[in-house]
Amino acid sequence: MNLDAVNSMSYEQFLDIFGNIIEKCPIITAAVWSRRPFSSFGEVEDGVHEFIESLPISGKEGILRCHPDLAGRELTSGTLTMESQEEQRRAGLTSLTSQERERLTLLNTQYKEKFGFPFVICAKMADKDKIMRELSARLQNDPSVELLIGIDEVKKICHLRIQDILCKGSLLPTKL
Amino acid sequence: MNLDAVNSMSYEQFLDIFGNIIEKCPIITAAVWSRRPFSSFGEVEDGVHEFIESLPISGKEGILRCHPDLAGRELTSGTLTMESQEEQRRAGLTSLTSQERERLTLLNTQYKEKFGFPFVICAKMADKDKIMRELSARLQNDPSVELLIGIDEVKKICHLRIQDILCKGSLLPTKL
Repeated sequence: MNLDAVNSMSYEQFLDIFGNIIEKCPIITAAVWSRRPFSSFGEVEDGVHEFIESLPISGKEGILRCHPDLAGRELTSGTLTMESQEEQRRAGLTSLTSQERERLTLLNTQYKEKFGFPFVICAKMADKDKIMRELSARLQNDPSVELLIGIDEVKKICHLRIQDILCKGSLLPTKL
Repeated sequence: MNLDAVNSMSYEQFLDIFGNIIEKCPIITAAVWSRRPFSSFGEVEDGVHEFIESLPISGKEGILRCHPDLAGRELTSGTLTMESQEEQRRAGLTSLTSQERERLTLLNTQYKEKFGFPFVICAKMADKDKIMRELSARLQNDPSVELLIGIDEVKKICHLRIQDILCKGSLLPTKL
């Protein structure tokens, strides 16, 4: 893995590779590019965290609202981002029974009605049973607590997406 | 036009309609949803402006970096957002001579090298000759001035995109 290659990237190259480490928020990646040169990939992640933490509550809610429902309309219509599609597939959400899908849809709807943002969980660190349990449990939380938990899950997703990019070797100089 | 309909929208409906009023920044629309009920469509726009102004310089640069080049790679590859495609077409950028395209590409490259973000102009309020002139002129500015001008253009684009949504009647209650 080549940090020099990342540090010499144009913002367009940086966005092509890291643009969706926060779901549908390329503005965050694009802002973090201003901080280069990075002395480690952890600094990219630190930049993302600082951007998120600097936002008002509505901005953090905005990040959550850019996330799709689990096994929701974007999965059905094939409009998930590549990253979300893979994460939902690995968690078993593309092969639910109709009973499981109905239950998940009901819980998602209740969650969104209560909080005004979707249930976000790092699907790669869970399976469908854990997701159902967590969703039922988190539905009982206060909105302020749930915002914190949701943003924490966003950060976990971001971490794994960065790891995935590094593992796939997308950063080999030959790709630039 | 029905403001009540907008005020009763879920965040998903609101994002479906207003999600790209700032290019590739649905987080901003999603954050503004927290401010409803709106007493006018101007309040939606005010919310967008306040979000943008609250960002640090890197965040404002990030917004600009989410914009495509004029007559650039996204236009060539057909990956522009619907809104940008229409704006660039109306400004005559989809029917440039090869000489014009070469000149625009050269100026865009010089601009990005100098400022670290793309040249953003409200294309609907310009034609290709004005765009060329403005690009040549703005290339001479200081980066801090050019950031302000770019963000001002983003706001003009946002205003016209909202107007366009209202004119197209996408907000008729029957669409909900």
